[in-house]
Amino acid sequence: VLKSGGKGEATRAAILDQALEIASADGLEGLSLGTLAAEVGMSKSGLFAHFRSKEQLQLSALARGVERFVAKVVAPAVKAERGEPRVRALFDLLLRWDRHEFTGGCVLQTAVVEFDDHPGPVRDFVVETQRDWFDTLTKVARAGVESRAFKKDLDARLFAFELANIFLGYRRHARLLRDRDAEKLAKKALDELLERARA
Amino acid sequence: VLKSGGKGEATRAAILDQALEIASADGLEGLSLGTLAAEVGMSKSGLFAHFRSKEQLQLSALARGVERFVAKVVAPAVKAERGEPRVRALFDLLLRWDRHEFTGGCVLQTAVVEFDDHPGPVRDFVVETQRDWFDTLTKVARAGVESRAFKKDLDARLFAFELANIFLGYRRHARLLRDRDAEKLAKKALDELLERARA
Repeated sequence: VLKSGGKGEATRAAILDQALEIASADGLEGLSLGTLAAEVGMSKSGLFAHFRSKEQLQLSALARGVERFVAKVVAPAVKAERGEPRVRALFDLLLRWDRHEFTGGCVLQTAVVEFDDHPGPVRDFVVETQRDWFDTLTKVARAGVESRAFKKDLDARLFAFELANIFLGYRRHARLLRDRDAEKLAKKALDELLERARA
Repeated sequence: VLKSGGKGEATRAAILDQALEIASADGLEGLSLGTLAAEVGMSKSGLFAHFRSKEQLQLSALARGVERFVAKVVAPAVKAERGEPRVRALFDLLLRWDRHEFTGGCVLQTAVVEFDDHPGPVRDFVVETQRDWFDTLTKVARAGVESRAFKKDLDARLFAFELANIFLGYRRHARLLRDRDAEKLAKKALDELLERARA
């Protein structure tokens, strides 16, 4: 078993990053100990010693994805000033994440659709990450109210709902429709949302 | 081969409706001539005579899904008065479709995520249906401008983008997060969108 800390941790993270690349293209269901073993040049039994089952591998890969998402999107965004700068930072970081982090697009988003109707530990984990994401957006809205950048009676959950929707819409237009105006449309929708939120 | 018109058409539609049920739960990739044959009580070779390949079956099922979507959502909605009534009719019909049409939720939406990174005829078809959907929403916005219900300088594409995003957000909150407020949040976002569009 890989030791925690040091080289073991780094190896484990590298294996899971490879797993996320596979899942980004083929979905979490396309991720098996066999396909991953071939990619990382380990034996299937060697991988089995670490992850025990396809489900454990899927869960570990998702957890690694969340770790990277927090480090690259959430943590830097909340360093920005409360209110509009923080919302715009989140928007810019999320667009960068969506474009560059994985070849096949955001693997956490792929998991949402793959597992929305499949009860079990993977779905539970996906729901938890989406609730955390929605909570983060709600807190970003509330922080803007506290700093008096946003109006006192702002509906923070509605703001979070609409902000999350802009991200979904951007993905659809950019990734599926390959619409060159995807970012422009998303930015305009964001401007309108911020306009309405302003104190 | 099933004859066009009459009983042949009805049988074909019934087979494709069964295919859509399977795809709604397991995705279009979960749909094969073998699994479908078992469900409809036909031989695999009998089905093969109609659909020739898994890909042809996927395309035929999607086309049938679009046919049903137009009949149950688009056609009745555009009968409503231009402007707000037409937008609200579309919203209500889409929510009903999302909840009741397929056990595992909108199969067209599932196809979007399944095929967004997989080039080929199925992806091309999915993109076409999403472009048609977005065009329909843009036309609904423009019709509101023409009837003077919406403001003259309304950005119809931005309106369509935001309306489509509300539907995506509703799905995430209702189906994944199982949030009881999904409809309430979506309705509030729709009210704000209509408020801004009003002449």
